[in-house]
Amino acid sequence: MDLITSLPASWGHTLRVTVEVIGTVAFALSGILAGMRKRMDVFGITVLGFLAAFGGGTLRDILLDRRPFVWVSETALLWLVLGLCASSMVLLRGGRRRISDQAIQVADALGLGLFAASGVQYALVAQLPALVAVLMGVVTGVFGGVMRDIACNETPTAFSDHRPYAVCAFFGGWLYVAAQWLGWSAWASLLASAVFPTGLRLLAVRLDWRLPGWPE
Amino acid sequence: MDLITSLPASWGHTLRVTVEVIGTVAFALSGILAGMRKRMDVFGITVLGFLAAFGGGTLRDILLDRRPFVWVSETALLWLVLGLCASSMVLLRGGRRRISDQAIQVADALGLGLFAASGVQYALVAQLPALVAVLMGVVTGVFGGVMRDIACNETPTAFSDHRPYAVCAFFGGWLYVAAQWLGWSAWASLLASAVFPTGLRLLAVRLDWRLPGWPE
Amino acid sequence: MDLITSLPASWGHTLRVTVEVIGTVAFALSGILAGMRKRMDVFGITVLGFLAAFGGGTLRDILLDRRPFVWVSETALLWLVLGLCASSMVLLRGGRRRISDQAIQVADALGLGLFAASGVQYALVAQLPALVAVLMGVVTGVFGGVMRDIACNETPTAFSDHRPYAVCAFFGGWLYVAAQWLGWSAWASLLASAVFPTGLRLLAVRLDWRLPGWPE
Repeated sequence: MDLITSLPASWGHTLRVTVEVIGTVAFALSGILAGMRKRMDVFGITVLGFLAAFGGGTLRDILLDRRPFVWVSETALLWLVLGLCASSMVLLRGGRRRISDQAIQVADALGLGLFAASGVQYALVAQLPALVAVLMGVVTGVFGGVMRDIACNETPTAFSDHRPYAVCAFFGGWLYVAAQWLGWSAWASLLASAVFPTGLRLLAVRLDWRLPGWPE
Repeated sequence: MDLITSLPASWGHTLRVTVEVIGTVAFALSGILAGMRKRMDVFGITVLGFLAAFGGGTLRDILLDRRPFVWVSETALLWLVLGLCASSMVLLRGGRRRISDQAIQVADALGLGLFAASGVQYALVAQLPALVAVLMGVVTGVFGGVMRDIACNETPTAFSDHRPYAVCAFFGGWLYVAAQWLGWSAWASLLASAVFPTGLRLLAVRLDWRLPGWPE
Repeated sequence: MDLITSLPASWGHTLRVTVEVIGTVAFALSGILAGMRKRMDVFGITVLGFLAAFGGGTLRDILLDRRPFVWVSETALLWLVLGLCASSMVLLRGGRRRISDQAIQVADALGLGLFAASGVQYALVAQLPALVAVLMGVVTGVFGGVMRDIACNETPTAFSDHRPYAVCAFFGGWLYVAAQWLGWSAWASLLASAVFPTGLRLLAVRLDWRLPGWPE
């Protein structure tokens, strides 16, 4: 609400809803596909869809002590993910995977940027210090996927695949903070800090950039 | 408290305490047995007992921002689980497992129904939408076991064993919502929506029903 | 703040800050080393450092519904851990591990005692029952490491290595409660209940004490 009022009413709301829906669908799909790959049952796959889609934002809200959660105030998002699970079941039956890996990568990059930017914004609205706000952005963007992987009994991809993912959200977060310092409007900051990590991520995937590890 | 006052004073309280105690003992035992199977030490087994018994309700209360937790207001439950861990250690020593799998199944089905019903009720008292309340029931009934399995470094049984478990709690939750719409009293709704998933679960185990997965 | 005002101003504050810094560094190092061992990337190792250092205290604060978190009110601690990750990367490069296992053991025992004692104190200040306060101490001391291990996709060491660890924190917690009953001052209780589990843990490691498991 604080957030919405700080934006031009109609623009801000439409922008946020669009952001939430695209990010939610992208992340839910990543959870559903992970559950399928692990040969889970209907319930497991649905939970993975929910965890991936809502886990990051819910963890952020618990840390910020912020209620209601997005999925409580916008129950439509819950129905959307439930419907997505049901329709994936029907559409992806029969062994033909209709969703290409590339489409998932693009949607996931979009979700990362959008969720990270909104996480930073929520934290700054709650008057938290810049570094904490940036970390909240990373949590929002990345921890849905981390929960998905932990529930699959796998080492989280985000921790171990040596590709820039969370790092993109981290730099995007600082971009938001910088934009605020420069006096940009809330929605310009939001847009810039959502587009930047998405683009950086897509570039990193395309050019096959690698993150260093610690050789032992 | 809200809950208790909404029920006939003596009945409601006795019913709730009985529910909590049976469900807690059943779930704690499932955690203790899981820890034994994983050859954990005294501390690990005790933590698994606590996680299985209190994990689901605690997660629900964190999501609902509800305090105090049941195990804070009723410390007796903590002592009960501690005592259960200690006595299991003595009684189950020497390789003879005294608790049959069937007894565990029945107690677990009871815990599932009781916890799920109470989860739905708490959420409806907190004025949450029906779908959210049903999900809170599922969380309360199922996530103690999920945490137990994650702490054991295993893929949660509830996600992957292809048997109806969470699904029973899900339908039980909608039964509660329906009962409320039909104007049933709180305790009749609670009882019906606790008995239904318990019965459904026992039936599913007995008749060996299977949940579909997504073939890839 | 409640805590600090209940202690002699300068002593109490210096003591607490020293405690937090040593414990944080020790636990962060354990996370960083775990991530290196698992061949994670820069992000994974940093997250493990954060989880190990702040996970226990953050979980305690979520359970107690206490805000702000230590790492929000003292952002310097966040920068400290970030700096520690970056400098470990540089210093531990090239295969020579400069930090001996023994140094880690001592620091970790210090962290255990210090965090457990502060956890008990926070819970008692929040008027919680003695058993709950002791459990909060155990959670604060132990669950950072548990989260680190779960994020590494391993069975938590604290649950399964059959060495006294959490048990030391448990007894230290009861020492704090006893000290309060005996009318000791807050800082004397804090000191005693931090030194005791640290010493007990070091003794247990040195004398190779074993915890019983449950033979099946």
